[in-house]
Amino acid sequence: MDYSQQALQRHKELKGKISVTLKDKLDTRDKLSIYYTPGVGAVSSYVAEHPDETRDYTWTNNSVAVVSDGSAVLGLGNIGPEGALPVMEGKAMLFKHFADIDAVPVVLNVHSADEIVATVKAISPSYGGINLEDIAAPLCFEVEDRLKAELDIPVFHDDQHGTAIVVLAGLINAMKVIGKQLKDTKIVVVGAGAAGTAIIRLIHLYASPNILALDSRGIISSGRQDLNAEKKKLLEFTNPSDEDGTLNDAMNGADIFIGVSKAGLVTPEMIKNMASNPIIFAMANPTPEIMPDLAKSAGAAIVATGRSDFPNQVNNSLAFPGIFRGALDNRVTRITDQHKLKVAEVIASLVDNPSPDVIIPSNLDDRLVPAIAKVIV
Amino acid sequence: MDYSQQALQRHKELKGKISVTLKDKLDTRDKLSIYYTPGVGAVSSYVAEHPDETRDYTWTNNSVAVVSDGSAVLGLGNIGPEGALPVMEGKAMLFKHFADIDAVPVVLNVHSADEIVATVKAISPSYGGINLEDIAAPLCFEVEDRLKAELDIPVFHDDQHGTAIVVLAGLINAMKVIGKQLKDTKIVVVGAGAAGTAIIRLIHLYASPNILALDSRGIISSGRQDLNAEKKKLLEFTNPSDEDGTLNDAMNGADIFIGVSKAGLVTPEMIKNMASNPIIFAMANPTPEIMPDLAKSAGAAIVATGRSDFPNQVNNSLAFPGIFRGALDNRVTRITDQHKLKVAEVIASLVDNPSPDVIIPSNLDDRLVPAIAKVIV
Repeated sequence: MDYSQQALQRHKELKGKISVTLKDKLDTRDKLSIYYTPGVGAVSSYVAEHPDETRDYTWTNNSVAVVSDGSAVLGLGNIGPEGALPVMEGKAMLFKHFADIDAVPVVLNVHSADEIVATVKAISPSYGGINLEDIAAPLCFEVEDRLKAELDIPVFHDDQHGTAIVVLAGLINAMKVIGKQLKDTKIVVVGAGAAGTAIIRLIHLYASPNILALDSRGIISSGRQDLNAEKKKLLEFTNPSDEDGTLNDAMNGADIFIGVSKAGLVTPEMIKNMASNPIIFAMANPTPEIMPDLAKSAGAAIVATGRSDFPNQVNNSLAFPGIFRGALDNRVTRITDQHKLKVAEVIASLVDNPSPDVIIPSNLDDRLVPAIAKVIV
Repeated sequence: MDYSQQALQRHKELKGKISVTLKDKLDTRDKLSIYYTPGVGAVSSYVAEHPDETRDYTWTNNSVAVVSDGSAVLGLGNIGPEGALPVMEGKAMLFKHFADIDAVPVVLNVHSADEIVATVKAISPSYGGINLEDIAAPLCFEVEDRLKAELDIPVFHDDQHGTAIVVLAGLINAMKVIGKQLKDTKIVVVGAGAAGTAIIRLIHLYASPNILALDSRGIISSGRQDLNAEKKKLLEFTNPSDEDGTLNDAMNGADIFIGVSKAGLVTPEMIKNMASNPIIFAMANPTPEIMPDLAKSAGAAIVATGRSDFPNQVNNSLAFPGIFRGALDNRVTRITDQHKLKVAEVIASLVDNPSPDVIIPSNLDDRLVPAIAKVIV
């Protein structure tokens, strides 16, 4: 189904998808005097003297900024802050719906790492957490690293880590279904941007399997002269035999394909050349690297995509609501790699009997947020 | 009544006074697909290609950032962004309550004009307007001027202009009560910070009366060696005879006293030395320059304060809700001096029969917002 026309019409009717509401009505003079002047002066004085207690008196106990410069919006690329705004408002809806978090869109018309970092640092006292969204690689890595180092509230780039966590959760259950050990597998990851890099790092941390990373020019190897610093770093976790080659070469004998790249990249022949019970995560949006039916008919044992109209949707909304719920409730200032591994295991554990069509729980599973929040400590 | 304890308790119970709400429930898969991926992609593409229509599809048609660096919070001074946050959340409540505007607090931990301007510019695509609040003079003048010049959304420093507009509205009605012409009066303004400067400029623009401006060292005159650039500029609008002297000197024969300074500055003797039917705007918070009863017993014809427990409360919330409502609805990109004069006249006109105790309407008067919004075109 094509939702484009409905989406355009509905957004124009609503003129924005979120609004601000008051926790108490301002229906008496006394309330004005308590919530605003003169009463609020005592609260401001107290908080200024006890900044560690700011969250006990303000919305920062539950507020998150959804920050984007619009440089990598969905599959649309660098469309700028205005274009990014509908997505960030949508993300704010998800925060509220899934985790009762007060998230607001903050789209930026600056685009260098220095400017993005300076802006987010400047506004950071307004929020209890920062969700970075749709910022292009490799800029996103520097922005996130610097903000994590310089802020004492959680900073989480969802395109990287949300995706990586859910992919790992799916792989954990996929291994149960086909009876392999993740550490013994050969994994091909295509797409070495924000999501691909985070997926590689998290899988490596979890099980150190044999991973080959590919970008649009082929396998990332030490002989490549065209690699940026972030792609070079991937060689620490991938390609132990320093192979060169194409996707065709990489897929030979692979157990798992993970695509965050583009439509139609994978052919049935490639799948036929993989190891037994091949697993395909074809997450290009909106059209996967190979359509599930075609992958299955070529022998794929399990197929996951980014779409809700096929089984096994790899959906960030499985992870980030519970992660921020936990971070806010438990006053966790940094989302660590250990948190990410635990969240992947929690998500995997919520599928009672993994099967080829159910390796990932539904994002409507209401056990997700509390179970994830509990491990963010 | 002291609201301090109630305010502290209530803020701690509520943990913040505003939250985010969704304009439609996310209760079906279809809605997720319309408001978020994949449907939102069409909206983002459209908006990116037609940035002028961003407001038709996003919350920017109704969103305002309440921005402060916490450098001049209420009467508390430079208490920083955390201390400012309860006030900015309270202001967001007023925006919603009075004008149904979705305002969010943005407190900054940067404090130079360059940094504040850079930050607000960077986040500006997220909002339909910028309300500057509690930024110290003279920094606030540069920040507002630069943002007005560089942004195409309304920027309004409420401490300056909100106060000035309501003071002028009160003076317009006070003149009707005592039968003088504002242009023929001698006016003493004490306090040459954000509010005082804006009051002087707006009154000058409206009627060019004889104004004397004073700071804590006395009358601002050309002989003073201690004046910053903003105070020097006041000499263009004030002190035509270039008088020197103290508040005592200034008050001799004055028709109107306007104080945005500190408690107890004005004595009954000073009022007795004023012209006939003296008018006293004693707006120091929380304790006026002279208490209304004392001023009246010394001969004041009309007294206004900043407080809700005396007649004639000069309250910013009379002006800013309607101003932003009008600017957002009518897509006005700049609040001009002409707008401010018109708003003052509108506010004054809503008092049907001005009397010594009623020269300013109640901020609960529900004719205010629509009447003001209509002149912001």
